[in-house]
Amino acid sequence: MKQELGASPLRLHLNENTAGCSPRVLAALQAVTREQAAYYPDYERATAVCAARLGVTPDELVLTNGLDEGILGVAMSALRIRRDRGATEAIVPEPAFDVYASASDAAGAQVVHVGPEPDLAFPLEGVLAAVSARTAVVFVTSPNNPTGVPIARDAILQVAERARNALVLVDEAYADFGGTTLIGDEALAGLPNVIVGRTFAKAYGLAGIRVGALIGHPAEIDVLRRVLLPYSVNTYAVAALQAAFEDLEYYDWYRGEVEQSRRILSDALQRLGVKFWPSAANFVLANFGDRSTAVLAGLAERGIVVRDRSRDPGCAGCLRITAGIVSHTRACVAALEEVVCAVR
Amino acid sequence: MKQELGASPLRLHLNENTAGCSPRVLAALQAVTREQAAYYPDYERATAVCAARLGVTPDELVLTNGLDEGILGVAMSALRIRRDRGATEAIVPEPAFDVYASASDAAGAQVVHVGPEPDLAFPLEGVLAAVSARTAVVFVTSPNNPTGVPIARDAILQVAERARNALVLVDEAYADFGGTTLIGDEALAGLPNVIVGRTFAKAYGLAGIRVGALIGHPAEIDVLRRVLLPYSVNTYAVAALQAAFEDLEYYDWYRGEVEQSRRILSDALQRLGVKFWPSAANFVLANFGDRSTAVLAGLAERGIVVRDRSRDPGCAGCLRITAGIVSHTRACVAALEEVVCAVR
Repeated sequence: MKQELGASPLRLHLNENTAGCSPRVLAALQAVTREQAAYYPDYERATAVCAARLGVTPDELVLTNGLDEGILGVAMSALRIRRDRGATEAIVPEPAFDVYASASDAAGAQVVHVGPEPDLAFPLEGVLAAVSARTAVVFVTSPNNPTGVPIARDAILQVAERARNALVLVDEAYADFGGTTLIGDEALAGLPNVIVGRTFAKAYGLAGIRVGALIGHPAEIDVLRRVLLPYSVNTYAVAALQAAFEDLEYYDWYRGEVEQSRRILSDALQRLGVKFWPSAANFVLANFGDRSTAVLAGLAERGIVVRDRSRDPGCAGCLRITAGIVSHTRACVAALEEVVCAVR
Repeated sequence: MKQELGASPLRLHLNENTAGCSPRVLAALQAVTREQAAYYPDYERATAVCAARLGVTPDELVLTNGLDEGILGVAMSALRIRRDRGATEAIVPEPAFDVYASASDAAGAQVVHVGPEPDLAFPLEGVLAAVSARTAVVFVTSPNNPTGVPIARDAILQVAERARNALVLVDEAYADFGGTTLIGDEALAGLPNVIVGRTFAKAYGLAGIRVGALIGHPAEIDVLRRVLLPYSVNTYAVAALQAAFEDLEYYDWYRGEVEQSRRILSDALQRLGVKFWPSAANFVLANFGDRSTAVLAGLAERGIVVRDRSRDPGCAGCLRITAGIVSHTRACVAALEEVVCAVR
């Protein structure tokens, strides 16, 4: 599958699959009829197919309008029955995806930010110490965004155990790229407060289509269904999801590209003497120190957009670079070499 | 534009455009590329086009994932800054669209149901009496669903005036079909607490595509933007919306069908001695009394699904029938005549 460099700029800032969705997904999208576009969607088959793909039963899964809606849904669901007993806090270990804080705020929670460990390691002790009777929900991301580093299973389980009276969203948006998953983990049988979030935006290239899923105990999923809007996932998302699961060749191809891109990017950063984090996701976080603004600008001048994370807690000097399509990564590395040398 | 009867059953229960979306919308949807499907959407142009269509400025409008998300967004936004001063009630004049209550509950509101007047007229006095310092949000639908009867402008303004410290969502989901609109109404200059909701599901045939909008004062819309998820409207919805506004011939054609269908259906109901409400929407509510279960079943046997609203407050015996495509309405009327005569 030959990949041309797309029209400038090259989007390496949002961890999208810059090759696009699978051609078979596109064909399924183009086969949607006028009537289907005009009818409210039905989720029964898509839910069943998605559950089968993730190895759970349909009553353990609810589709969401991107994982963003899943995050909001978990926040709303957590607050809904805990607000009356004074549990209204949302714990967000930093650095983190910004939707945790905004969705928690929208749901009426007070956000408790837990600062990162040195080197941006998961602040396990800080999170455990932050959990109290006031905790409604805890957000954990593995592999983490923006570092790409997975969180140890044991650490997540300790948090879930400590926060038994709260919901714990384990955001596995990037788990397709090499992290492990908690889905199907035997420890969850005793931890019904854990909800796992997945997205099909990244590995399946459906970011514009907006589809994700929440996976958990049937009783919790049932409560979530009542909080989520009845038709939040659109007809095109339903069609795309089903087709994506029928083209696992494309999924595997993209994962292969990501693996190779991470290696190419990591090697280049090492060669250039730039600190980076070993990523299990489709991006790499690199610390350019006080050169980061110049690097960001230099890449932009060369038509390559990467994500400035330098204002995130503990992330001064950091840029996040999508590691997806190999040809795009090579273009980025070539530009990086020029830019980093120029600003040395 | 010849319309065939679709595959059975004929869906006259969800007020969809059963002809489908416009052919030009379908063409635009089919022109979406693999890359566009994989990139996060951009709303700038669609917001501008939509604002122009509705005669407002882009800062007075935010697109939503169907009007459902708009309803949830208004509830969350209302509660967010009013919760701390004890204003947590959502006033829902009945009978009403069920998402008002479910979204209010999800946002953490207590729902205050205001029962209908005899004959299902808008309970103005009841709503005014229900407004208090505890009120966070009031939901008003004009034309009403399920009656199809518009609410007098003056009544809505009285509610908005009385509920100055709350948000008032004026749900105009069906305003395309003959109701008046509050958008652009000069009285709103002094009532920044009023948000108008619109959907493109109905008149534009985009129910499966999920796209709606909230219109209001820039300051309130700005707050809503912060509560709503950043990418809740998908790429296909963006493409569909822009194309729909470029095919107003189709929009006008469907509105013409609706007008004719309402007349055909009303005439038939009158002939059959069935009470109905004079509708300004794309449906008609009819009271079949104790025959309603038999009528519902008889229509279903003939492949026609209508909506049982008999359990709504004040709606015992009522069925709601979509009045859209004339050929579909004629099929429904033929079946109704058989069924009503049979159960007489």
